[in-house]
Amino acid sequence: MDDARYRIGLATARNLDPEAPERLEAALKEVAPDLYRHIVEFAFGDILSRPGLDPKTREIATVSALAALGNAQPQLRFHLNAALNLGCTRAELAEILMQMAVYAGVPAALNALYLAKEVFAERDAKGLS
Amino acid sequence: MDDARYRIGLATARNLDPEAPERLEAALKEVAPDLYRHIVEFAFGDILSRPGLDPKTREIATVSALAALGNAQPQLRFHLNAALNLGCTRAELAEILMQMAVYAGVPAALNALYLAKEVFAERDAKGLS
Amino acid sequence: MDDARYRIGLATARNLDPEAPERLEAALKEVAPDLYRHIVEFAFGDILSRPGLDPKTREIATVSALAALGNAQPQLRFHLNAALNLGCTRAELAEILMQMAVYAGVPAALNALYLAKEVFAERDAKGLS
Amino acid sequence: MDDARYRIGLATARNLDPEAPERLEAALKEVAPDLYRHIVEFAFGDILSRPGLDPKTREIATVSALAALGNAQPQLRFHLNAALNLGCTRAELAEILMQMAVYAGVPAALNALYLAKEVFAERDAKGLS
Amino acid sequence: MDDARYRIGLATARNLDPEAPERLEAALKEVAPDLYRHIVEFAFGDILSRPGLDPKTREIATVSALAALGNAQPQLRFHLNAALNLGCTRAELAEILMQMAVYAGVPAALNALYLAKEVFAERDAKGLS
Amino acid sequence: MDDARYRIGLATARNLDPEAPERLEAALKEVAPDLYRHIVEFAFGDILSRPGLDPKTREIATVSALAALGNAQPQLRFHLNAALNLGCTRAELAEILMQMAVYAGVPAALNALYLAKEVFAERDAKGLS
Repeated sequence: MDDARYRIGLATARNLDPEAPERLEAALKEVAPDLYRHIVEFAFGDILSRPGLDPKTREIATVSALAALGNAQPQLRFHLNAALNLGCTRAELAEILMQMAVYAGVPAALNALYLAKEVFAERDAKGLS
Repeated sequence: MDDARYRIGLATARNLDPEAPERLEAALKEVAPDLYRHIVEFAFGDILSRPGLDPKTREIATVSALAALGNAQPQLRFHLNAALNLGCTRAELAEILMQMAVYAGVPAALNALYLAKEVFAERDAKGLS
Repeated sequence: MDDARYRIGLATARNLDPEAPERLEAALKEVAPDLYRHIVEFAFGDILSRPGLDPKTREIATVSALAALGNAQPQLRFHLNAALNLGCTRAELAEILMQMAVYAGVPAALNALYLAKEVFAERDAKGLS
Repeated sequence: MDDARYRIGLATARNLDPEAPERLEAALKEVAPDLYRHIVEFAFGDILSRPGLDPKTREIATVSALAALGNAQPQLRFHLNAALNLGCTRAELAEILMQMAVYAGVPAALNALYLAKEVFAERDAKGLS
Repeated sequence: MDDARYRIGLATARNLDPEAPERLEAALKEVAPDLYRHIVEFAFGDILSRPGLDPKTREIATVSALAALGNAQPQLRFHLNAALNLGCTRAELAEILMQMAVYAGVPAALNALYLAKEVFAERDAKGLS
Repeated sequence: MDDARYRIGLATARNLDPEAPERLEAALKEVAPDLYRHIVEFAFGDILSRPGLDPKTREIATVSALAALGNAQPQLRFHLNAALNLGCTRAELAEILMQMAVYAGVPAALNALYLAKEVFAERDAKGLS
């Protein structure tokens, strides 16, 4: 059994968003249930939990990559929230997304910032920072 | 005249790599000389010099984005060097690139790591960290 | 006249989805009517009808490519349906999309699987396999 | 102060769409207000206002690039309108988008043409060419 | 037989580069010989030969799209040459590529300009404009 | 310990290319040694070894995705070889790559076919099918 990786992955995912594992499991249950476990174990357990970089810096790298890719809006939404949950400020996230205008083009930066605006408004409505 | 932005951009670029402005100017001289000035003023002067994020964190975001895009090898090479010049460690950069296996796929991570290996070897040959 | 290519393309397209040609023709009628004919003749007639690969394998290759590209949702929706119409199982399609987590990243796989879930539900509502 | 670049950028942007600057400023006000000014000054002021290419040709290049990228729908919508405002015909834009079937694939061309159809219908409703 | 489309495609391709068809045929002969004919007939014959846009404008759209995509260097090289053969100036091509800094990011623009520099040098060596 | 996943992954990777694990381990040893193990365990062990799809079909999906992405040449080279090692024919691979002209554009198809030509020549030199 591979319970250690799963438990570490679960804790890492919950640190980003306490409901993340349950939501992912429900989303994949009907279509690819095993992928839920592989994502928790590999993405969160093997990679994101590594001690070589602090979780906040990892989220900055992820937000930047997803904004540059430009076709991963649900995941960018998740990681903008995760970054804020870990203590990144909205201003820091806006800086990263603005910077993508240089490296991925103005449209990539604008579309990521429009999504960030939605995320910030949703958090305002929930009283979250 | 727009000298303030140019001077700030020049200082920001030189902080990443002291020879960067001269190399970029030479590379663009024959084909698009004005773009040199626009990059120094906009990319380095307007964006990368903003105080809202420290330069090392900005380089982490850039390295991550360029690795995810996967078709910007010369710029990834430049920013891997810049990140090291600013005090990022090789281990930190390897962490970011490994993380791209999750968000941009294993090929994107591998190709970025193979480039990092070349950069690290070049720096070894020059006695750089 | 180029009727042979058109007739072959029409038959190939209808094999994927009996209503595909009419729907494509209607969608392009106002904006680029000639493109309808070029797509039937080139994409379906010249390429997809070639005997060197069976139609089901061609659909697997297409679903995989569209999921990896990540910005062709209407076409991925069409080809998930086409693959099922040709006898691919839902489980086989889920396997291909899961595999994209390795090659195009976890977000590409997840977004394709979320779309597959919608397609499967629509087919359930119509009593299709 | 950098007012010359801003004024030139403002005029260039308004030539594409008289309301563009105000709309962009409003969209970015809460999340990244400085980016509004950088886009007006750099994108519109430094680059799009350059005399080396006429504005209509610049829009053709932009429409083509955004259609090929495939993940910049809001910007493609803006530039389809801008191209029409500058005197491009709908037929010319449809030609460019059809051509993307060759260079970026049939899905990229189709999705851009479906967006163009929406833009054309919106302009019909406003009595615009 | 489909000779009309092939002859039109051949003429269109030769207008861009007199040796293009023979070079493409040779390149594909061993690996995918039929694709040569499909590209001549569809890309050059059906699409690029359409009267709705002049050949020079078509090349501008293609150069822009290929620079934005960033992973089609051999084709960008071909179309930079084709655009120059049709009467575009080097300065016009540089303008288009610079503009990609706005829409696809500074790395995409730089890498396309570095390739253009090579193309221009090769043409200098052959005494071509 | 996670030896079961590693052993399954190792066997799956060796089935594609007997020397793959050793080559990957050596390539990553200096720069990201843990990633070697994660790739064997996750990519080969968790995903590619799943019984829901036969290995040859998995390679067809991978070759198609990598050709569509267009910026993963080393991995496309590996998987073209792997597909041939598993019994795919060169003609089948050429069919898949030609098909990418429809979904990812003619440049993506051409560049993948040029790489396939190199792979086929290397295999000829080694007396491989």
